[in-house]
Amino acid sequence: MSILIKNVLCNNAVVDVLIQGNSIAKIDKNIDFNADKIIDGTDKAICPGFVNCHTHSAMTFFRGIGDGLSLDSWLNDFIWPIEAKMTEETVYHYAKLAFLEMIKSGTTCFYDMYWFRDVLDRAATEIGIRAVEPQIVMTGNKPFKETVKEVEDAYKRFKPNDLTSFAVAPHAVYTVSKELLEWVRDFSEENNLLVQIHAAETKKENDDCFKQYGMTPIRFLESIGLLSPRLSVAHCLWVDNEEIKMLADNDVKVVHNPNSNLKLSSGYQFEFEKMKQMGITVGLGTDGCGSSDNLDMTEAMKVASLIGKAWRFDSKAVTANSVFDSATVNAGLIVDKKIGKIEEGYLADVVLFNLNSPAMIPNHNFIANVVYSANGADVDTVICNGKVLMENRYVDFEKDLIDEVKSYTNYFVKHVKL
Amino acid sequence: MSILIKNVLCNNAVVDVLIQGNSIAKIDKNIDFNADKIIDGTDKAICPGFVNCHTHSAMTFFRGIGDGLSLDSWLNDFIWPIEAKMTEETVYHYAKLAFLEMIKSGTTCFYDMYWFRDVLDRAATEIGIRAVEPQIVMTGNKPFKETVKEVEDAYKRFKPNDLTSFAVAPHAVYTVSKELLEWVRDFSEENNLLVQIHAAETKKENDDCFKQYGMTPIRFLESIGLLSPRLSVAHCLWVDNEEIKMLADNDVKVVHNPNSNLKLSSGYQFEFEKMKQMGITVGLGTDGCGSSDNLDMTEAMKVASLIGKAWRFDSKAVTANSVFDSATVNAGLIVDKKIGKIEEGYLADVVLFNLNSPAMIPNHNFIANVVYSANGADVDTVICNGKVLMENRYVDFEKDLIDEVKSYTNYFVKHVKL
Repeated sequence: MSILIKNVLCNNAVVDVLIQGNSIAKIDKNIDFNADKIIDGTDKAICPGFVNCHTHSAMTFFRGIGDGLSLDSWLNDFIWPIEAKMTEETVYHYAKLAFLEMIKSGTTCFYDMYWFRDVLDRAATEIGIRAVEPQIVMTGNKPFKETVKEVEDAYKRFKPNDLTSFAVAPHAVYTVSKELLEWVRDFSEENNLLVQIHAAETKKENDDCFKQYGMTPIRFLESIGLLSPRLSVAHCLWVDNEEIKMLADNDVKVVHNPNSNLKLSSGYQFEFEKMKQMGITVGLGTDGCGSSDNLDMTEAMKVASLIGKAWRFDSKAVTANSVFDSATVNAGLIVDKKIGKIEEGYLADVVLFNLNSPAMIPNHNFIANVVYSANGADVDTVICNGKVLMENRYVDFEKDLIDEVKSYTNYFVKHVKL
Repeated sequence: MSILIKNVLCNNAVVDVLIQGNSIAKIDKNIDFNADKIIDGTDKAICPGFVNCHTHSAMTFFRGIGDGLSLDSWLNDFIWPIEAKMTEETVYHYAKLAFLEMIKSGTTCFYDMYWFRDVLDRAATEIGIRAVEPQIVMTGNKPFKETVKEVEDAYKRFKPNDLTSFAVAPHAVYTVSKELLEWVRDFSEENNLLVQIHAAETKKENDDCFKQYGMTPIRFLESIGLLSPRLSVAHCLWVDNEEIKMLADNDVKVVHNPNSNLKLSSGYQFEFEKMKQMGITVGLGTDGCGSSDNLDMTEAMKVASLIGKAWRFDSKAVTANSVFDSATVNAGLIVDKKIGKIEEGYLADVVLFNLNSPAMIPNHNFIANVVYSANGADVDTVICNGKVLMENRYVDFEKDLIDEVKSYTNYFVKHVKL
């Protein structure tokens, strides 16, 4: 299968882009190639598909629930009781809804974290979207050995493939025992697996960790040797200079989730510029729809930039280019896949923006327009792994999927007595 | 002309909505009426069109310019030199682009502030969108009498009509002399005109005003008697409790512009909750595309809510319902038009959201979905003053307008040597 995109704006030049198999084969003026499919790129600009580096896909069910509640009430009265009733079937439906929403807003890859990883893996593969699907690790009431066996079994069941990869996600320092975290360290090292954890999200988490371990979460993770280039830490809002240095020294990746942090009032003082200066690879995430309500990376980029400028009173900080890199090329390093650049040899995860959308005119600066002016609906065409998932905003499975999810929602809302 | 919208979700019930002339005539189940036009409201929800209470419409030209620059460089090297070259023709094209962008994101009315009000008035009327178009007042190098005559002449030329209204916009306390502000006070009172001014936007403005007048901008406006129910103040970021009380006591309206304040690093500590508690009518604006880059009120609502929660570390603050009111019913009071509610007798400025958009599913809470999950492109149909401006996202003049603006941009970019 080959796709030839003709006359498309790419880094300020109009070129042709040839995709062969699942990769970008050639970028040049007037490519002469008898491709299986031709896409007219006139009045369109190509850029890498966005990579959402932290989300909980199946939480689309929780969209719009809990505004105006305290965090305690939101968790105890809604999120946890409902999550306890979610089955494989629930996760399958709401994850697929999430993947559709991602495609329709230009996201071609994501780093997920939710229960029933096999189901999530299957759903992503059916849809054709790229994903890191980790096995979650939480202590709960389970014996240590049972959790270990669950992860080992899940890893045995996982079949390496083009689209999805395996990882381990110890939930947080306050939900996973030290013993389990140390096991994750060894298991992930032996099998060369990515690891993602929530840490330093709230001041309360830091205070509690200090009470339990006599140190803050990042210091604790460092003390048990979990910091590594394979680790990405979601949030990292409450970190001091010494902790930032620890993260940098160990090439740990950081994922900023501005909308979620703001909505839950976790904080706003994310040290984007300081981390960048220290050489840390910073990615961006929407977090799950429980706290961020949508999965639109254009919105995550804009809010990251705006809040990053505002709290330091520095309009020159956290530029459009910086956050665009976080959502593309830096993210490629975080998910450990050859994506995030329009360059020969990179995987063909690309999107075309519609330059005739009012919000994209004038086009003085394409990246600035994408970050500050566009929304996800200005994405016209989405290609993932060399396959067209959306063209002229049409996704062939959209109508059936929407009907299915709406019908399932009618059942599930009654079931959980929402 | 009459429009019957059948089976549409309205405040949690499925109803029919009948529009006759330019007003909402009836809201009921199964309305039996032989309307000129029937719209199928299945899988759609109706809500008031959004009202953008502070913008500079023709600044769409500046979209994407100046990120990563200091405020000084942005103003001196880009905004002001380019504005000096803008003609009636420039304003006409970029204002029309703004109006199209507003329609495509569900805005049916706006409070503008830009040069060449006659041109703006004509453009809004041609497009069919509702507007307050004030005459700007700035001291500059002009003699007092010349500015006064300009406003008086503009008011004489203005023909009262259904869509646009006249107002006066003294730019700010640092650009308009005390003498002119006092004249605006008297002229607007005599003619019962709305007045809008920028004030308390930056700490520097407050400090400068204190140096010049020995008091902060709101106190200065109070001292010269400009505070009145006809006045709306854009920004009001840097106000203390005493000033908030002054605004409340005089029923002054306040317009919050979160995206612009964040991007220019003017501040983030807008006292939404305190103003609301004191009974102030708070509206929302995008501000111009120079600082906010787009005109999407769904984004303004979301950011207003998120930053309003975050800086106070209170997830219960600035709810979706609060900011939705700011963009609809409160805004109606600010622009002094009978809009912002789906209620019999109100003007027919309404929009239909597409409930089959992935970001609107599940629909546990429509207002929360609009504020936190939707973007402007989830608006399917827009009716303003009883006329359909967009249906199924199709705007009949869109293609021609885009072609015109793109062609004009090619000329103007060369002309201003951008």
